[in-house]
Amino acid sequence: MNFCSDNVTGVSPAIMAALSAANDGPAMPYGSDPVSQRLEAKFSELFETSVTVFPVATGSAANALALSVMTPPFGAVYCLTESHINADECGAPEFFTGGAKLIPLTGVDGKLPAATLAATLARAGAGVVHHVQPAIVSLTQATEAGTVYSPDEVLEIAGVAQDHDLKVHMDGARFANAVVSLGCTPAAVTWQAGVDVLSFGATKNGAMAAEAVVFFNRDLAETFHYRRKRGGHLWSKMRFLSAQLEAYIADDLWLKNAAHANHMAAKLAAGLAELPGANLCFPVEANEIFVKLSPEVIAALHQQGFQFYRWDNDIIRLVTAFNTREEDVAAFLAVAQRHSDLALGVG
Amino acid sequence: MNFCSDNVTGVSPAIMAALSAANDGPAMPYGSDPVSQRLEAKFSELFETSVTVFPVATGSAANALALSVMTPPFGAVYCLTESHINADECGAPEFFTGGAKLIPLTGVDGKLPAATLAATLARAGAGVVHHVQPAIVSLTQATEAGTVYSPDEVLEIAGVAQDHDLKVHMDGARFANAVVSLGCTPAAVTWQAGVDVLSFGATKNGAMAAEAVVFFNRDLAETFHYRRKRGGHLWSKMRFLSAQLEAYIADDLWLKNAAHANHMAAKLAAGLAELPGANLCFPVEANEIFVKLSPEVIAALHQQGFQFYRWDNDIIRLVTAFNTREEDVAAFLAVAQRHSDLALGVG
Amino acid sequence: MNFCSDNVTGVSPAIMAALSAANDGPAMPYGSDPVSQRLEAKFSELFETSVTVFPVATGSAANALALSVMTPPFGAVYCLTESHINADECGAPEFFTGGAKLIPLTGVDGKLPAATLAATLARAGAGVVHHVQPAIVSLTQATEAGTVYSPDEVLEIAGVAQDHDLKVHMDGARFANAVVSLGCTPAAVTWQAGVDVLSFGATKNGAMAAEAVVFFNRDLAETFHYRRKRGGHLWSKMRFLSAQLEAYIADDLWLKNAAHANHMAAKLAAGLAELPGANLCFPVEANEIFVKLSPEVIAALHQQGFQFYRWDNDIIRLVTAFNTREEDVAAFLAVAQRHSDLALGVG
Amino acid sequence: MNFCSDNVTGVSPAIMAALSAANDGPAMPYGSDPVSQRLEAKFSELFETSVTVFPVATGSAANALALSVMTPPFGAVYCLTESHINADECGAPEFFTGGAKLIPLTGVDGKLPAATLAATLARAGAGVVHHVQPAIVSLTQATEAGTVYSPDEVLEIAGVAQDHDLKVHMDGARFANAVVSLGCTPAAVTWQAGVDVLSFGATKNGAMAAEAVVFFNRDLAETFHYRRKRGGHLWSKMRFLSAQLEAYIADDLWLKNAAHANHMAAKLAAGLAELPGANLCFPVEANEIFVKLSPEVIAALHQQGFQFYRWDNDIIRLVTAFNTREEDVAAFLAVAQRHSDLALGVG
Repeated sequence: MNFCSDNVTGVSPAIMAALSAANDGPAMPYGSDPVSQRLEAKFSELFETSVTVFPVATGSAANALALSVMTPPFGAVYCLTESHINADECGAPEFFTGGAKLIPLTGVDGKLPAATLAATLARAGAGVVHHVQPAIVSLTQATEAGTVYSPDEVLEIAGVAQDHDLKVHMDGARFANAVVSLGCTPAAVTWQAGVDVLSFGATKNGAMAAEAVVFFNRDLAETFHYRRKRGGHLWSKMRFLSAQLEAYIADDLWLKNAAHANHMAAKLAAGLAELPGANLCFPVEANEIFVKLSPEVIAALHQQGFQFYRWDNDIIRLVTAFNTREEDVAAFLAVAQRHSDLALGVG
Repeated sequence: MNFCSDNVTGVSPAIMAALSAANDGPAMPYGSDPVSQRLEAKFSELFETSVTVFPVATGSAANALALSVMTPPFGAVYCLTESHINADECGAPEFFTGGAKLIPLTGVDGKLPAATLAATLARAGAGVVHHVQPAIVSLTQATEAGTVYSPDEVLEIAGVAQDHDLKVHMDGARFANAVVSLGCTPAAVTWQAGVDVLSFGATKNGAMAAEAVVFFNRDLAETFHYRRKRGGHLWSKMRFLSAQLEAYIADDLWLKNAAHANHMAAKLAAGLAELPGANLCFPVEANEIFVKLSPEVIAALHQQGFQFYRWDNDIIRLVTAFNTREEDVAAFLAVAQRHSDLALGVG
Repeated sequence: MNFCSDNVTGVSPAIMAALSAANDGPAMPYGSDPVSQRLEAKFSELFETSVTVFPVATGSAANALALSVMTPPFGAVYCLTESHINADECGAPEFFTGGAKLIPLTGVDGKLPAATLAATLARAGAGVVHHVQPAIVSLTQATEAGTVYSPDEVLEIAGVAQDHDLKVHMDGARFANAVVSLGCTPAAVTWQAGVDVLSFGATKNGAMAAEAVVFFNRDLAETFHYRRKRGGHLWSKMRFLSAQLEAYIADDLWLKNAAHANHMAAKLAAGLAELPGANLCFPVEANEIFVKLSPEVIAALHQQGFQFYRWDNDIIRLVTAFNTREEDVAAFLAVAQRHSDLALGVG
Repeated sequence: MNFCSDNVTGVSPAIMAALSAANDGPAMPYGSDPVSQRLEAKFSELFETSVTVFPVATGSAANALALSVMTPPFGAVYCLTESHINADECGAPEFFTGGAKLIPLTGVDGKLPAATLAATLARAGAGVVHHVQPAIVSLTQATEAGTVYSPDEVLEIAGVAQDHDLKVHMDGARFANAVVSLGCTPAAVTWQAGVDVLSFGATKNGAMAAEAVVFFNRDLAETFHYRRKRGGHLWSKMRFLSAQLEAYIADDLWLKNAAHANHMAAKLAAGLAELPGANLCFPVEANEIFVKLSPEVIAALHQQGFQFYRWDNDIIRLVTAFNTREEDVAAFLAVAQRHSDLALGVG
């Protein structure tokens, strides 16, 4: 009954099995093993285009390393104030880029309006020596608000970016949830929509510790392996990182896992929407729910053993995952219902 | 029959079992899980003193993060030219320290003579604004040459370091092999000998991807967790990192694994020492052997399917591991023997 | 007739004379010359307390080096969006601090409300590993809007800062103009109001290229000389940097120069305030004026040879300096008056 | 009677006059003034090719900024152990390059043998992810030993560099002394010999604080102005930096100044060579002399008021400059002669 985050979950059985299978006999290190060697072909197939792929163990590493090859140290990275790269990585992007500046912008329902980006870039001072130079726009898909950019929305932002010679990064910590939600191909919402580099998340959706940095713009990948190494992110026993990713994208595991998480979130959201006094803060399009509840109801839920984060006095976040149980959702809603009724004197 | 490195091995069964066990139910992320919570007590017990411990996934991360809290950006790190931090981490120490300078020194049998350090520090320009400021001496234990510092040798170096206000770092990627070789306690060759911070390796000795940064000088640890996070080295599902380390030090697994590797190396070394025309380059005190062989013998070994790295035209490195099979050692020696005899026209 | 900035001016005659005087015979380098040696005593007298002082040649260097000793690389620096450190130094603070994050806040009349800082810090996540850690608040005095913080205003902000263990930095590129405007002692609006480190500007007010980083909190200065050197900001012929600063604070030159600049700004502002259709954007309290004028009037002024920067379509910035001539101010106002009348069909 | 360094001197009268002349009326800042605008043409004429030029105030800034655009953060910079960039800049190159590694090599008479560079590069591990990647060779001209590379020597080193895709940097803090010594054109020993970027020194040879970073390989200059700005090295009143350089290269001032310094050094060297018990450590080819003298003679010279640095117990360094007086040289030699005779019981 832990709705704190999708990172409180363990590892998908298929991924655990892949780790065991990879542990058979010796293998050359640093990516020279067979699993690692075939990873790029598999991701290229998945994305319907030739891509360059680098596995790393954490989302912060994926994002920060990706950004580090997309901007000079004096560059500007446009992102939402609440984006993970700006708010939750303790300055990892600044560290890996050698001091680039993240420009925090204000979104709507967790999404960056293309017009906001355009207006900001119009005054950014490109070419003027006193100002950091526009380099990257970074989008989060699914967003920090649990919403999802449509391919058209990404395309529009990427268009603005291209007009100003910016590169487009997508933080896909919950990319699977977005793809499932959209019902589109992975290609449609990435390179076909103008994305240059994707942080393709797996950890939150069933892996132990694995993310893939996927380069659609392969020229940008040129120095990545040196930067990954000096960041301490090149595993010697790389097969155990690659095996997670291979299993993750095999047999649609990643989509199945995300579909379940999204389904549980939809159930939760539907139940919450009917509660008297409850208000969903954003459209629920992936596996995160932000809901306004009375403090009494929140307290009651905590008391009943449900775990979740409080965003504000009367707003909580609920995150579902690949292994969220339907009965836990039902139990949560039942308690919330009972105490909402009580709070309103209904019962 | 792969003697390339101890990182070509897989994962010890006990550690794989611990990973499976850790995958039972949800757990709070970022180190708030029960396994991570009890790790510090276990390491404190192991080292017979209260320590602060941070798990990370790679040795480069362990070293670079450790150094980053021991030197200012304008500091000097004294180490051997061939040390991993200087030669094999693509500049990770420079990156994490914000540009500290590694001062490469010349060793004897892979070890830094205390007198060399003393002579260097006497001319280092401490307090003079034009020069980087002496901050750290870093030792590798077991060394890159397969030798081992005795506690007295460490103590002597640490004494010089303390005379010049330097901190002492130990790169223990093969720390287990050194401890087994010395037959001493882990405490005796670390904090009791003046070491401030230890990179305690596990990956090369049976873990999947796990190292512990162990602070004996706990004041130095103050900012480590922020630096680990911004380096992208804080796992969300931290329990899977901690579980490897817990299993690694449980039931003396780390010592048993290292004892086997050292034993295999001793066997190999003994056999090689008797070969006509072969010369061991350094005393074999841990699990690495550097041996001079005729190019013909080297070629024959490669042809027979043995894998190992060539250090020079007529020098090869052989590394044994926790799971090196005795029959592979015997087979290697047999081929080497046969071709050495042939080369000398003995057969 | 150049009102673009106070940096379009040349050097005050007294400072030029000091440079010539300093050029008499040899002198030991890097600050061991007599002028540099006595600088700290003179600044201590000026500020009525013992201070540590480091001359540098540019304001960006002064600010970035000052910040670099006040925050760890994972720190947060709170400042206004339009502050020079955030908007006009091409990322120098990020570079010198090793990647600290500048948090842009919204001000009122160019000043940071203490309540805004307090509200921001209340949600900053101090002690939480995912977030950059609150380290510094930086104020600009006089502000980028041409206004001035009173000692009480500084004190209130510093109080909030101290409650959250932040250090207080003051960017005093136009500090002289602020002190003259306030009619207070330099002490009253700096250390007596809680400022830890001041970038004491001279270049904009008559020096060739000289700023002093003044530490009231002298413990913070400990590593500054190494950082200045590795930033390439330690002059070998330091006497020529120190001589500028010595002459600048001798005989109240700095205050006289600023008084003239402020007086010219007040004249301009008074004249502009009476123009039909003109609007001063902010109170004019130092030597900068932001005024809204019709585009026709702006065009006419440019056509008549007046130089100034356009902030927006109908807003211009005028900056006066130590050597702004009264007749230029009068000429500017005459042209503005004539064309404002024309624009309104008055004439 | 100060032979400590050429930076103990003041400013050449012609340069002081140029500073005064530049102080006439307002000028646009940051290099938009007329003096700065014409500088590139003048340097292009001087070097007989189109160059890109950036003035900065210090040699450390010139070197570190130059290197920062020639190497990635994971690059290797080959230089002599005693080179200024490696030994005397407190890590400025590491700072500005984002952590590149300086590889200290051993020279002969202060010069890097091409064969040493070639042998080092043969084992550098280009393309191997574990190693920093060869990026730059940096030569000092005149050298730290007071010797001078011939155009052929530079050409040979540059040839090795090009074979390995390295860029060639020349630290020309005493470039004028080298050119005068060689009697060649500035072009012959720079771009015609394969140099990509030159730190063209002026401070040590008569300027107040001015160096020019000269790009022969102009593509490398692309991001320099942003890096200079964020390093705090862009002067607002840039005309005063440019005016020094303009005067320095006008009317052969730079060559005349260096010719005098070299001439004085030759006089000193000739006199010292004849002293009983004295030994010149290196050929005296520019304006620095390293000489072995008995400690008694050294003590006597100090006692007589001569100032110079002691390199070792019985080795001193003497540096002559553009304004070294012939009588001081004679006086120095007279005292040295007298005490050398005494020491040997000759007198």
